[in-house]
Amino acid sequence: MTLSTAPYKGTRDFYPEDLQRRNYIFQTWKKTMLESGFSEYDSSIIESSDLYLAKSGEELGSKQLYSFVDKGDRKIALRPEMTPSLARLVCAKFGELQFPIRWFSIPNCFRYERPQKGRSREFWQLNLDIIGSKAGASDLEILYILGKIFLSFGAKKEMFSIRYGHRGLLDSWINAENLEVKKELIYKTLDEWHKIAEESRSTWMTEIGLDLEEQAKIGQFVKHPPLDLIKDFPDLVLVNQQIRQILPDVEYIFDTTIVRGIAYYTGLVFEAFDNNPENNRALFGGGRYDNLLDLFGKSAEAVGVGIGDLTWDGFLDGWNLWPEKFDNLQKVGILASGEDKLNQIYTETIPEILKNGKTYEINYEFDRSENKRWESLKKRNCEEIIKL
Amino acid sequence: MTLSTAPYKGTRDFYPEDLQRRNYIFQTWKKTMLESGFSEYDSSIIESSDLYLAKSGEELGSKQLYSFVDKGDRKIALRPEMTPSLARLVCAKFGELQFPIRWFSIPNCFRYERPQKGRSREFWQLNLDIIGSKAGASDLEILYILGKIFLSFGAKKEMFSIRYGHRGLLDSWINAENLEVKKELIYKTLDEWHKIAEESRSTWMTEIGLDLEEQAKIGQFVKHPPLDLIKDFPDLVLVNQQIRQILPDVEYIFDTTIVRGIAYYTGLVFEAFDNNPENNRALFGGGRYDNLLDLFGKSAEAVGVGIGDLTWDGFLDGWNLWPEKFDNLQKVGILASGEDKLNQIYTETIPEILKNGKTYEINYEFDRSENKRWESLKKRNCEEIIKL
Repeated sequence: MTLSTAPYKGTRDFYPEDLQRRNYIFQTWKKTMLESGFSEYDSSIIESSDLYLAKSGEELGSKQLYSFVDKGDRKIALRPEMTPSLARLVCAKFGELQFPIRWFSIPNCFRYERPQKGRSREFWQLNLDIIGSKAGASDLEILYILGKIFLSFGAKKEMFSIRYGHRGLLDSWINAENLEVKKELIYKTLDEWHKIAEESRSTWMTEIGLDLEEQAKIGQFVKHPPLDLIKDFPDLVLVNQQIRQILPDVEYIFDTTIVRGIAYYTGLVFEAFDNNPENNRALFGGGRYDNLLDLFGKSAEAVGVGIGDLTWDGFLDGWNLWPEKFDNLQKVGILASGEDKLNQIYTETIPEILKNGKTYEINYEFDRSENKRWESLKKRNCEEIIKL
Repeated sequence: MTLSTAPYKGTRDFYPEDLQRRNYIFQTWKKTMLESGFSEYDSSIIESSDLYLAKSGEELGSKQLYSFVDKGDRKIALRPEMTPSLARLVCAKFGELQFPIRWFSIPNCFRYERPQKGRSREFWQLNLDIIGSKAGASDLEILYILGKIFLSFGAKKEMFSIRYGHRGLLDSWINAENLEVKKELIYKTLDEWHKIAEESRSTWMTEIGLDLEEQAKIGQFVKHPPLDLIKDFPDLVLVNQQIRQILPDVEYIFDTTIVRGIAYYTGLVFEAFDNNPENNRALFGGGRYDNLLDLFGKSAEAVGVGIGDLTWDGFLDGWNLWPEKFDNLQKVGILASGEDKLNQIYTETIPEILKNGKTYEINYEFDRSENKRWESLKKRNCEEIIKL
C-alpha cells in the first residue's frame, strides 16, 4: 500500500520556509508580551470534553468540537480555544496565585469547520489575559498592548484600526430606551452595521422586526453615543480619555456597533480591523468577561483577547509587512576533498564559524565532482564556501 | 455542575514557572540545532491513522495509539512520534528538496500508556535527521551533535556516555558464526546485557534457549568485537577513528550490545546513558534507517534520533544542571497614586524601562494602601519599584 502524502484536511505542513513565517509571528508576539511583563503558560491540547460542553453555545460546544472517547472511556476533546483551560489552571491554584495575573500563551487549537481562506481546522492563537483586576486601567492596558503588537510588525496607522464598545453601556441604553424585548435584534443589527450599506439598513432592520422608531433610536445610538450614560462607566471614560494619547501611532475608535455576540462579555469589548480593501474584516476580538471561573465555583474579573495565526498571516501578506529576510544565522558551506578533512572540519573550521556567529553546511558526497558539490552548497543558501 | 481542575490523565499543566523549564530545554536544543545548520519544520499533531497502522509494530500501531474517527468519518490519530510525518513531508516534495536535508523539529506527541516517572501520555521530542546521505560522515555528524547537545546544558564527561553499535556488523557476525536461527535470541540477549548481573547471564541465556557454545560466542562478540568484520563497514571505521578526537569532552563508547530492537534500523545504532546511579538508564536512542520512505513508494537513506523532554528534564534534575536563574527580563514595579498617572506611565515610564532592556508590572488597585500594593509588586518579583 502506498499512502497519501497530503496532510489531514484543514491542517498545514510547515516546511522550513513556512515555519520561518510562523516562527516570526510567534517570536514577535512573544517579544511584545514579555516586554509587557506578561508570563507565558501552557497546558495540554487534550482536555475533558465537559470543559466545553458545560460552557459554550451549541456550535463550539458540540458541532465544532473535536471530541472523542479515549481507550479508558474518558470523554476527551482537542481544545477549540484556550480560555477554559486558562480558567482551569487559575482555579487549580486559586489560593496560591498573586492576583491580578497577567498571562499569555500561544496554544495549538482545533475546530471542526469547513476550511476556507483565513480559516483552517488547526490554528494557533495568541491569548493574553489579565485576571483578577476590575480596574479600567486593565482594559486600557490590553488595548495598549494590542496596539503595540501591530506596531511591532511595522504596521502603520492607516493599515488598521482598533474599535471598542461597551456591553454595560449598550445594555444600560437598551434599558433606558425600554427596548429590552428587542435586545437580541439590536445586538444583531449592531453586529451587522458596518457590513450593510447605509441605504439598505432600514430595509434590513424592518425585515428582522425593528420598527421605524426603534431604527431611529439605534441610528442615534451609533452616531451619537449617549454621554449621560457613558459617565456611569468609568472604565469607558478612562479609555476614551487616555488610549489615543498613550499610543498616538494607532487608530483607536470608540464605536458602539462593537458588541461581540458571545454571551460572556460583560464590559469593554473590542475588535481590530484590517483597512486593506481586499481584506476588510475583523482580525480579532476580545473584551472583559467576569464569569470566567464560574465553571469551577470561583469568581474573578478578567479581560482578554485571542489573535489567530492565520488572520495575522493574512494581515502581514496584505500589507507586505513580512521582513525582507528572516533573522537566520548566515550559512557557511564546507567543501572538503575527503574524509581525511573531517577532523580539521570539526576541531578547527566549525568552532571558528560558530565563533563568528554563523552556521555551517557540510557536503559529504566526496565521490561527486567538486563543481556539482559547490552548486549543491550554493542551493542550500551558503553565501560563503570554504574549501578544504 | 462544578468541574474538576485536574488536567487530563498523563498530561501536564505548565504554569509560568513550569513553562520556563520547558522553554529552557527547547531553546537550548534549538540553539544547538540552528548552530549546526539544521532547519526547523513542523506538521499537524493530527495525522491519518494509516500512517501508523501501516508501519509500526502492534504496540505503537494500535494499543498505544490515540486513534479516533472525525465527524467526517476519517480515521485520524494524534502522532505518537514524528518520523512518519517527516517521511510524509519529504515524499510530498521529493522532487523539489535539495538532498541531503538536515532537519529538526520539537513536536508534541501522544501515546496511550500508563503514566509513570519519566513517562507521560503527552510529551515533546527533539527530532533531528539527515535524509538522503549514505555517507558515514552523516552518522558521525549526528553523534557529534548529540554530544554537543549534552555540553550545551553544561553536562560534564563523567555524567553520561553515548554508546554505539552497528546492525550491519551484528548481522554479518551472526551470519559468519552460522547463528541465523538464533538471531532473535541474540538481539534479546544483547539488549539486556548490561541490565543483567554478569554472574546471572549464563542462567538467563540458557533459559531463553542459548547453549553454552553460543553463549561463549556472544560473550566474545561483546568483549572483543570482530576486527576482521568491522573493516567491511567504513561508516563504523570512520566513527571509531574520529568521534573521540573531534569531541574529546564527551565519552563515546563502541559497544556491540547496542542493537535497538526496532526493526527499521539498518546501520549504526546508538543510545545515550545517564551515569547518575539513581537514574542509570537510556536517555534516548537512534540510528540509521534506510527504509524511511517505503510507505510512500520512495527511497532515501537516513540517520536520526528523538530526545524526549521528560527524560531530559530528569537528566538535568539528577545532575543539578538547571541554571540558577532563567534568562528573564528584569521586572520593574510601577506604583502609581492614581489613574491620573497613567498617561505619564505609558508615555514616559514604560518606554524608559524598555529602553533599559527591562519589563514592568503595574499595580492598578489605587484604593488599597500603598504598603499592601508595594508588597504585592514585591511578590511578583519586581526587584525595583518606581513610585509615581
